[in-house]
Amino acid sequence: MTDDRLVRPQPISGFPEWLPEVRLVELHWIDQIRSAFERYGFCNVETPSVESLSVLTAKGETSQEVYTLRRLQADANASDASLGLHFDLTVPFARYVAQHLNDLVFPFKRYQIQRVWRGERPQEGRYREFTQCDIDVINIDNVPLAFDAELPRIIHEVLTSLSLPPWTININNRKVLQGFYEGLGVPDAVAVIRAVDKIDKIGADGGRQLLINAVGLTAAQADACLNLAAIKGSDRTVIDGVEALEVKSDLLAEGLAELAFVLDSLADLPAGTIVADLSIARGLDYYTGTVYEGKFVEWPDYGSICSGGRYENLAGSFVRRSLPGIGLSIGLTRIFAKLVAEGLLVTGPKSPTSVLMIVPSPEQVATAHAAAATLRSRGLNTEVYHQADKLKAQLRYASRKGIPYVWFPPFDADGTHEVKDMVTGDQVHADPAEWLPSPVPDAAGPVQLVE
Amino acid sequence: MTDDRLVRPQPISGFPEWLPEVRLVELHWIDQIRSAFERYGFCNVETPSVESLSVLTAKGETSQEVYTLRRLQADANASDASLGLHFDLTVPFARYVAQHLNDLVFPFKRYQIQRVWRGERPQEGRYREFTQCDIDVINIDNVPLAFDAELPRIIHEVLTSLSLPPWTININNRKVLQGFYEGLGVPDAVAVIRAVDKIDKIGADGGRQLLINAVGLTAAQADACLNLAAIKGSDRTVIDGVEALEVKSDLLAEGLAELAFVLDSLADLPAGTIVADLSIARGLDYYTGTVYEGKFVEWPDYGSICSGGRYENLAGSFVRRSLPGIGLSIGLTRIFAKLVAEGLLVTGPKSPTSVLMIVPSPEQVATAHAAAATLRSRGLNTEVYHQADKLKAQLRYASRKGIPYVWFPPFDADGTHEVKDMVTGDQVHADPAEWLPSPVPDAAGPVQLVE
Repeated sequence: MTDDRLVRPQPISGFPEWLPEVRLVELHWIDQIRSAFERYGFCNVETPSVESLSVLTAKGETSQEVYTLRRLQADANASDASLGLHFDLTVPFARYVAQHLNDLVFPFKRYQIQRVWRGERPQEGRYREFTQCDIDVINIDNVPLAFDAELPRIIHEVLTSLSLPPWTININNRKVLQGFYEGLGVPDAVAVIRAVDKIDKIGADGGRQLLINAVGLTAAQADACLNLAAIKGSDRTVIDGVEALEVKSDLLAEGLAELAFVLDSLADLPAGTIVADLSIARGLDYYTGTVYEGKFVEWPDYGSICSGGRYENLAGSFVRRSLPGIGLSIGLTRIFAKLVAEGLLVTGPKSPTSVLMIVPSPEQVATAHAAAATLRSRGLNTEVYHQADKLKAQLRYASRKGIPYVWFPPFDADGTHEVKDMVTGDQVHADPAEWLPSPVPDAAGPVQLVE
Repeated sequence: MTDDRLVRPQPISGFPEWLPEVRLVELHWIDQIRSAFERYGFCNVETPSVESLSVLTAKGETSQEVYTLRRLQADANASDASLGLHFDLTVPFARYVAQHLNDLVFPFKRYQIQRVWRGERPQEGRYREFTQCDIDVINIDNVPLAFDAELPRIIHEVLTSLSLPPWTININNRKVLQGFYEGLGVPDAVAVIRAVDKIDKIGADGGRQLLINAVGLTAAQADACLNLAAIKGSDRTVIDGVEALEVKSDLLAEGLAELAFVLDSLADLPAGTIVADLSIARGLDYYTGTVYEGKFVEWPDYGSICSGGRYENLAGSFVRRSLPGIGLSIGLTRIFAKLVAEGLLVTGPKSPTSVLMIVPSPEQVATAHAAAATLRSRGLNTEVYHQADKLKAQLRYASRKGIPYVWFPPFDADGTHEVKDMVTGDQVHADPAEWLPSPVPDAAGPVQLVE
């Protein structure tokens, strides 16, 4: 603790941290997200930050990104080494459902807002610690199609409430892809999906090469795949577009019907925000129907801002039951950090205080506290200045923290309370039992976001 | 993913996890805590879950409890091994203040509600992952005494709002202890504090032995120390009690004046909830004035439910500035898990839904969604049943999730909306644009806690 051994604090790459005025906005976002999820009846779940490695690696895929835990003073065989920080919220959720199967009511609709960790090299849009906001519905044997439309509606409502730069939620259906490739007589549909997934990066010509040379398609098959991937639109015309390619299979028909249902159900949402994009597949093998991928319009190369889809049996590694589900996840940190980096985040005050109670002299401390207690009991965040001090110092404190009102308790027994609006400078008589700020602060939080 | 390699999910000792209906109460608690902190003008901060090991071990003390991170596939020299999960929120806060010194407004009043990790052997009241709720005030050079009284007032308000079994917030002042021992002519005050701290466990006789044999006090000095430690009370009589022991020093007088100020300031709180207890010291060396320790009355041996105190220079390891502070921390998980274990936690519904919208037939889906949208726009959490189904199945779903109201959209163009109270069974005509549940749900959350 002596000066000669100072530890200079440094930011840790990949682990974002915000100043109070920025965090206030992030907290407001989380409140918005949470209240939207609850408005649709999703219940909250939190799981531990760690899972056993056997759970995390049950599918094998992402094991290289896992952070394991070890006690600093542990010997080499310490049992804690079998624990890892979760790298998403889907695996913990699947484990949770399997473990508590008999205590849950199905369809089980849950949301989960937690940090996740990945031992990746940090880069733009990729963090080693970040917050995800997931909603999933899981059911025994069958998840009604209604949820394929309800989840993007909820996420749409959330993203709208955050006042972001323009974005789209892109939707596709894996049955359409799989069914189309089957109808084409392609031997390995998954290999085609993987190749088409790369068109974004390597271009249509590169994709065509890949499909012919690596996957082994004929030129005609490859062209049909590229034609399918080029279809994009907001309404049933995309269905017509696929049908015009004259490929047929039962699975394709089923997928198109599902996609049409989702598009029809969301037709009331603002034009251009929901886009059927037949190129997107979402790499993960477990998606089996509807898939989602949200993007910023201006930054197409920036990672997805939300993603998800329908899976046939997510908890299959953990329990002998058929537990299909559908989920969508918002990459909160990815979105938020991008806005911060672009200078697009409008921050407000540095504290949640609405009213600073002035303490003009030691004799008024009791009156100040009593008035503050009255304001607080009415739901107004009220700070009593921490000591009797010069008025100038107290006003400066309010101004530096962005506190919108300062309150003057009466100077003597005959005096009255007064409140000053720090923006307009207006100062009026006021009764702590009745005064209301004007305009009434937004119930969702003190920060006003402006586009 | 095949059945033959099922991974059976098991609870991980020391990492608590709750069912949705229990989590709903925990979330309600967190909301109560957060809103109390904000009501007094504290702003939120979140720090990364990890700190560099040099920060975590800057004081050396608790290094053995730290979990370090390692990538599952890392080689032995991986740089991530220099990161550890934070074991409290005080060290990260000190580092945060030092790092962002020029961007903060002082006195800086922050709250932080986050998980912390300790690589300890789990036992009752001790977890390896748990949530702490901290409020601290930090200032340059000097923290006004007003905060010594304000912090316990806030925590008192929080604990009261949680409807807990009886508890006390015990208060002492390290200057009283240090000053008393100095006045007694004791050579090593810290050694005495450590010994007195053990009286709880080893009894007064054991403490006396320790003071005489290990610390080297005379019998008269040891008795004086024990007499001081036996003083307890809710008002200024404790000051009189200390003065009656006729030990004198400037530091003692200063400490007694501070303690008297705190007790006087809190005199309006319910009798017996604030107790000056001259035996408590809070082991950590960095406390220098007021100290706090909350306990359940019925379970005196159970760990503290809140604790904290005043420290002279917390960020001294990180920056060459005098940054004194005062803080109090609520052990959320410790309190919550105890209530769960004792069967004292009253849980409510399994979802946040207020209204389940019935879908009697496929023809009514659109009407149901429109009515639900209206209810949601008015702030009512409303779930639309996921498919047209038998009425009985839909009511059973509402009942199993504890949803208090079900809503019937009109059966035809001439029909009216009806809503059924699932508790009373009453069913009435209702307009989605006007109906309100009766009684109006508590704004703080759907769960009613009953003592």
